[in-house]
Order: sequence, then C-alpha cells, then structure tokens
Amino acid sequence: MEPFSKRLEKAVRRTNGCLCVGLDVDAAKMPQGFTPDAPGAAAFCKAIIDATRDLAAAYKPNLAFFEALGKGGWEAFEAVRAAVPAECLFVADAKRGDIGNTSQAYASAFFGRLHCDALTVAPYMGRDSVDPFLSYEGTCAFVLCLTSNPSAADFETQELASGGKLYQRVARTAVTWGQASKGEVGLVAGATRPEHLKALRALAPDAPFLVPGVGAQGGDLETVLRDAKNSSGYGLLVNASRSILYASKGADFTEAARREAEKMVSAMRPHFK
Amino acid sequence: MEPFSKRLEKAVRRTNGCLCVGLDVDAAKMPQGFTPDAPGAAAFCKAIIDATRDLAAAYKPNLAFFEALGKGGWEAFEAVRAAVPAECLFVADAKRGDIGNTSQAYASAFFGRLHCDALTVAPYMGRDSVDPFLSYEGTCAFVLCLTSNPSAADFETQELASGGKLYQRVARTAVTWGQASKGEVGLVAGATRPEHLKALRALAPDAPFLVPGVGAQGGDLETVLRDAKNSSGYGLLVNASRSILYASKGADFTEAARREAEKMVSAMRPHFK
Repeated sequence: MEPFSKRLEKAVRRTNGCLCVGLDVDAAKMPQGFTPDAPGAAAFCKAIIDATRDLAAAYKPNLAFFEALGKGGWEAFEAVRAAVPAECLFVADAKRGDIGNTSQAYASAFFGRLHCDALTVAPYMGRDSVDPFLSYEGTCAFVLCLTSNPSAADFETQELASGGKLYQRVARTAVTWGQASKGEVGLVAGATRPEHLKALRALAPDAPFLVPGVGAQGGDLETVLRDAKNSSGYGLLVNASRSILYASKGADFTEAARREAEKMVSAMRPHFK
Repeated sequence: MEPFSKRLEKAVRRTNGCLCVGLDVDAAKMPQGFTPDAPGAAAFCKAIIDATRDLAAAYKPNLAFFEALGKGGWEAFEAVRAAVPAECLFVADAKRGDIGNTSQAYASAFFGRLHCDALTVAPYMGRDSVDPFLSYEGTCAFVLCLTSNPSAADFETQELASGGKLYQRVARTAVTWGQASKGEVGLVAGATRPEHLKALRALAPDAPFLVPGVGAQGGDLETVLRDAKNSSGYGLLVNASRSILYASKGADFTEAARREAEKMVSAMRPHFK
C-alpha cells in the first residue's frame, strides 16, 4: 500500500482542499427522522458522508460518541467505516495508548481489523506505547501534541528543564519514531494556538498534521492554511465537526452540511493550486 | 452511592488484600476449550472471575483486548461487567481522554451506561479532559501518572523548569481536580519504580492508587505494600494479569489461577490486619 502521506496528497489534490469531516455524532443533536441510537447514528453519518464525499479529503469519527451508544456503537462504527469511499481517508479519533502488548491489541483492532487509514494516539507513556501503531503499512498514527482545549496549559505547554515546552519535546521525539517504521507518525496540533502551530511545523517539517479547533472552537482557517502545510505543500488535514454535522436540524441537513463543507473548501482552494 | 474510597476499603477488608485481577484476555493464550473469539473471551473471563471472586478486591478488564475482538468485543465486555459480583470493584482500563464534550461521551459510556466503578484516564490534555469523568458519584478516575513501561522516561520522568518531574506535577495537579467533585481522582503508579512510588504517595497521601507491574513486569510486591497504601491504610489496588490468567493452559486453569491469586493475597494479608 502507498504511504499515508502519498495518499493524503492525492486526497488533497482530488478535493483541492484538506477538509476532514469530524463525525462526532451526538444522538441528542441529530436532525429529525433519525432514531437516537446506534443505527440512527450510523444512518446519519452515512447521509453526511454521501453529501460531502467529493469535498472531504478525510472523515474522522470520534470513538467516544460511538461507545456512548452501547454495544451497538461498535457495529455503527464499522458501518460508518464501510460507508467511507476508498478515495477518502478514514481517521479513527480514539486517542488510544497503553503499554506495548496492549497497544498492539488496539493497533490490531483499528488497523488490522477495521482497516483505518489513521488513528489518533496519546503520547504520555512514550515510545513503546506508540510503536505498535507504526507496524501497519500505509497508515499514520497522529500523536496528540498540542490540543485546542484550554487545559492544554496544565501539562502540554509546561516548560522543561532541558529547554522548550513539553509539546515541543513530544513533536521532536515522536517524529523520530516514524523514521524507520512501516506506518508514519503525524501530529495533532490545535488551530486555536496559531503562534505555536508555526513553531511546531518548524520542528516537524514533513509530518502530516491533523488540525482540530477550526470552526466551533474558534481557530482561524487562513492562519492554519498558511502555517501548517508540510514541506511538500500538503501534509495537512483541517477538521470541522459540529459546524458541518449540525448545520441544520431540519430535512435540509445534508444540503446545509454540504454548504458548510463547501464554504471551508472554498477557503482552502487558493492554497492548493 | 458510597464514595469509591469507602467501597475500596470494604473490598480490601473483605479479602484482606488489595488484589486487582487484570482481565487482559488474549485469544491466543486462552486455555484449551475456549473459542478464540468474543464469546470465548467472555466465557474465559467469567471462569476466572468465578474462581477468584473471594480473593479479588477488584477486576480490571483492559478494553484493548476486547476491541481487538471486533464488534462482538463490546458485547463480551458487557457480559464480563455483568459477571463481576457487586462486592468486587470493576475498573475499566481504557486510558480514555479527549476534550470536554468528548470525554463526557466516554464518561457516559463507562459510568452512565456500563456502571463501571472506576476508569483509567489519560492526563496529557489536562483538567478539562478529565473533569467529565468526575461527575459520577461513587466512582474513581485513575489518572495515568507513572507507568511501568521503559519509555516512561520519554516524557513522564522529564524534569520541569518549575521543579520536579512531569509525573509529579500530574500527581499534584490531578488530586486537586477531585477535591470538590462527585467522583474521586486516583493515580496509576507502576510498581517497577519503587523509589518513585514512595515519593508519589507523599504527594498524594489520600488518593487511591492503582499499581500495575507486579508479577510478569517484575515489580516487588512487598515494597508496594509497604510504600503505597494511603493515609488510612487502604487506598491501594495491586494489579496482576498474565500471572493469574495464564497460570495454566490446561483443564486445571481455574485452580492454577486461584493458586496464583491466593499466593498474592497471602503476601498481602499481613499488611491489612
């Protein structure tokens, strides 16, 4: 299989954008006509995918919302995976991470069994907790680096005695893990901290970046597009979830979702000519 | 519902021990007679629970091994939850954590829907990623603090410019999150670092500790029992997984599991008289 970066480049070229549609499906917010359960959530996600597949470079369901649906949730997740067309990347936002043999089980679940293209993983436990996610060709493990929530200041932006902040060490260290592995290492870098985003790109010039926080969380899209592309001019996914999924609660929800997606991709086009 | 700490104390008094049996069910390692799939894994866990319920203060299934079984895995996980007797605590080892509304969905999955007594959570994203796990009475969120894997040195044991190591800041900070919440904050502290364990107890004298790394990973049980109890003489769960689960591959696997559990509890008894 082609490396993840190559496939990402293709998806960006196809859509002239780097939109990742976050499938944060909330049963309480779904439009009328969908039952607030696992089958309803799967049907809603499929409708969103069908309405946006030519605009989306990637889809990113967050496992939390599927797990909240009970045992039917995983079935719904698998159905959503199956509904994503081959030309779009499928990023499982699961933020997994554990000691070696346990991370191996997670990797087998998401890459081996579900054929996800990428997975978000947690860095706290260090290299041996991430390594098992790097043994699947064509995939990417997006390591949490700098997140868009206010409490990122608790630990992520703490200064280290050796110099630099924790998230900078995570970036520098994590990219080395992917240098000789089958899978790639990417970074999750929040859009709400533009000054950091630019610095982060300098530390990791080639790695794919997954950037949440544009839209409902307030990050500025132009700044992200200017500062976060990689050295080859691609290597970037910008995520939007709620602004697209819940653009309308009415029968026009697919049109409204498409309109919001189109709005984002329009802003992206000048950056990917 | 009674606070988690109170229930943990009762479980320790009942068993004269603080044994947490880790249900890291690996289809490839299960004894003969169990099919290597989700129903087989559930049946195996139930057999282990039945054989050790008077010795175990708690059970701790790791979600990774259930997710690796595919969509039947969550059904198996629910069956295991249902098989754990009320007098034993049920700790979901899931190491979850995400931004606020997403952590809320995870909390609803594990505490709201599955009625877990405790959950392991990841600290990297800070307070607002953990807070949603603290709104369920009688529960505990065990925050990853110092883990037993070698790569803990990558980030956890890094010195901060403000003084102390990252894991110490995590300990000091995380215990404050639980001060006015419905649920409690506990810490995951690996047994393979006894010198740190004692220091950690000094930083968090009351918090429940979940200590993995005894047994297969080589941590010393006596040291843990001496250094890791909380100020009231309880507040401790020591986990053992593989040494108990896979004590025998033969038809005597429940007897062998029981023998291993009994061996650990025997060592614990003098500390909980």
